[in-house]
Amino acid sequence: MYQPFQFFMPAQIFFGAGSLDNLGSAPLPGTKALIVIGGSSVKRLGYLDRVQALLKKQGVESVVFDKVQPNPVVEHVMEASSLARETGCDFVIGLGGGSSMDSAKSIAVMAANPGTYWDYIQGGSGKGLPIPCKPLPIVCITTTAGTGTEADPWTVITKEDTQEKIGFGFKGTFPTMSIVDPELMLSVPPKLTAYQGFDALFHAVEGYMATIASPMGDMFALQAIEYIAKYLPRAVNNGDDLEARAYVALANTYSGFVETISCCTSEHSIEHALSAFHPSLPHGAGLIMISWAYHEAYAPSCPERYARVAAAMGQEASVDGFLNGLNSLKEACGVDKLKMSEFGITPDLFDEYAKTAFSTMGNLFELDRCKLTPADVVSILEKSYS
Amino acid sequence: MYQPFQFFMPAQIFFGAGSLDNLGSAPLPGTKALIVIGGSSVKRLGYLDRVQALLKKQGVESVVFDKVQPNPVVEHVMEASSLARETGCDFVIGLGGGSSMDSAKSIAVMAANPGTYWDYIQGGSGKGLPIPCKPLPIVCITTTAGTGTEADPWTVITKEDTQEKIGFGFKGTFPTMSIVDPELMLSVPPKLTAYQGFDALFHAVEGYMATIASPMGDMFALQAIEYIAKYLPRAVNNGDDLEARAYVALANTYSGFVETISCCTSEHSIEHALSAFHPSLPHGAGLIMISWAYHEAYAPSCPERYARVAAAMGQEASVDGFLNGLNSLKEACGVDKLKMSEFGITPDLFDEYAKTAFSTMGNLFELDRCKLTPADVVSILEKSYS
Repeated sequence: MYQPFQFFMPAQIFFGAGSLDNLGSAPLPGTKALIVIGGSSVKRLGYLDRVQALLKKQGVESVVFDKVQPNPVVEHVMEASSLARETGCDFVIGLGGGSSMDSAKSIAVMAANPGTYWDYIQGGSGKGLPIPCKPLPIVCITTTAGTGTEADPWTVITKEDTQEKIGFGFKGTFPTMSIVDPELMLSVPPKLTAYQGFDALFHAVEGYMATIASPMGDMFALQAIEYIAKYLPRAVNNGDDLEARAYVALANTYSGFVETISCCTSEHSIEHALSAFHPSLPHGAGLIMISWAYHEAYAPSCPERYARVAAAMGQEASVDGFLNGLNSLKEACGVDKLKMSEFGITPDLFDEYAKTAFSTMGNLFELDRCKLTPADVVSILEKSYS
Repeated sequence: MYQPFQFFMPAQIFFGAGSLDNLGSAPLPGTKALIVIGGSSVKRLGYLDRVQALLKKQGVESVVFDKVQPNPVVEHVMEASSLARETGCDFVIGLGGGSSMDSAKSIAVMAANPGTYWDYIQGGSGKGLPIPCKPLPIVCITTTAGTGTEADPWTVITKEDTQEKIGFGFKGTFPTMSIVDPELMLSVPPKLTAYQGFDALFHAVEGYMATIASPMGDMFALQAIEYIAKYLPRAVNNGDDLEARAYVALANTYSGFVETISCCTSEHSIEHALSAFHPSLPHGAGLIMISWAYHEAYAPSCPERYARVAAAMGQEASVDGFLNGLNSLKEACGVDKLKMSEFGITPDLFDEYAKTAFSTMGNLFELDRCKLTPADVVSILEKSYS
């Protein structure tokens, strides 16, 4: 029998090569934008100039905040939200990967609300206070295919002093508009393409395995998984393959729908603990390294679901088909030889990572079909270590 | 290669048996509701009482408009919108089938805007004026599985004096909230279950065949088609089969997504012409009768798409597989022997129907892959006649 569900994903999504141009014609949610970016690539590639020119076409001014880090931090959320207030911005554009778009969401919250960001966070040392005012409207322009944040309300920010990396979101943090233009993704290097693509894969797989999985989320998940298995190796091995980029981008957006309708499982709690301790560890790389041991532990709780995912990946419909398919996909994308030790992860902290996974994102463990203890998490980390 | 697309479907959807109860707890878009119903069944079955009690739980008052006809008319839209204004209703609930929910959308427009409904209609004798004010918020509670209107912006209203039946919709006519509770559908009689299920099927099939079909609409369409082929005969032959009711309801909601992302083709233009002339002809019955000849004419333009639909129906992946599957499904649902003559349709009006199809909903012909002339439409009607 099916699981009842609620669907709500109010963002207007423009999908396809060239869809960035809609920014110059579609109704925008304000008259002055704070454009949130990280690193230098969106400047170097001319995306920032293009976005500003398209906004200008509609008479919309803009201010740029360009300090976002790969694992975005509370300090920058607060700094950018002050900037938005001081300069009178009435909406926020996240331009870049998940870190820029997630930051845009959190900045939109804090530009319209008092106190500090962690006052509103649930879990860890967050105070979990209610949010008094509606966030500024949010526009997501994604230049990578990895987080699905353009189609979900979630934002993940790290509090550096306490090494907590926690997801947060509610109705007000859905984007108003999202642009998914695979042409903007052509220049993503192979390794990052793979990391991000696997992140999208695990959003879909985990959403399919969570206890709250329902028919609609399952539809998005299986389609995303099929696209990633088919197109991710092509996008990794030939970055100019616009068709492959498009289907990986679409898979990623679908995985955002999965996260909106269903939820990640504890695989994400474990990875977030790792990258909270090791901010230079790419989220996707962390997931790739723990995934085999994680899903081997999880699969006995719902082998028939793993069989369906394996079939969507073009593999034999069984748990082994899934685990083999996962290994084949890693090989095809050149990420089968990642080593935890190379990212500074050491076995003496395994207990600490496990504790952090439960203390900061313990809620995801409750959505698992397979009940994992901190000792199980340590065992997954041990099996994943090299 | 894929077709770029825009996705926007902002309604919050509650799906599943018992989901009506959400009306008593989920945030509502107003404090006084005009409840729009038709016929006596929603009263007799206690649905109206239940809805009013759930609203009262949240302190929301309500006024009832109960005159909606199976093919709703402009006169009632105007009468109900005056009632909404006079009684100070600030949102509109459509409770029932497509006619009640479509009426609710049109009433919401006219309760907030001057003039008469046909001032805003595009096509036929409509004036196509811009709509100055935002419609009242709309809540859809569907008691049938046939129109998908709970997940699209469309409303179809008939202007009786000119025999025009025209679809209309924009951002403001999306529901704010939709409740799809298959328990409310258990009492739909077999024949209506079949008519409505086939309507949903054709929304999906046509959306898949339209020139603007894109990957996301295609995903919803193929899933809807698979569910209908599998579950509609069960729902028709055993109305109490709650699992079958649920999947047919879900298929129907998915077909609403298809209509939001893609569009119907001219099959709907032709049927609307028939039921504009014969208001007692159920829309689904009209579609069922013309469908074989219509799709036989259409299929040479995109045989590979028909093959994929056939596969989703569990048939051989070919045009013949689709046409055979269509016939089998009609037989399995007991609607393979419908006769146009029994609904008062006469061959001497075929030219007139064809002209009306083009004059009132000619825009759908432009989205066809197969270019049909009025003479082709007459030929389809001739082949469909018995």
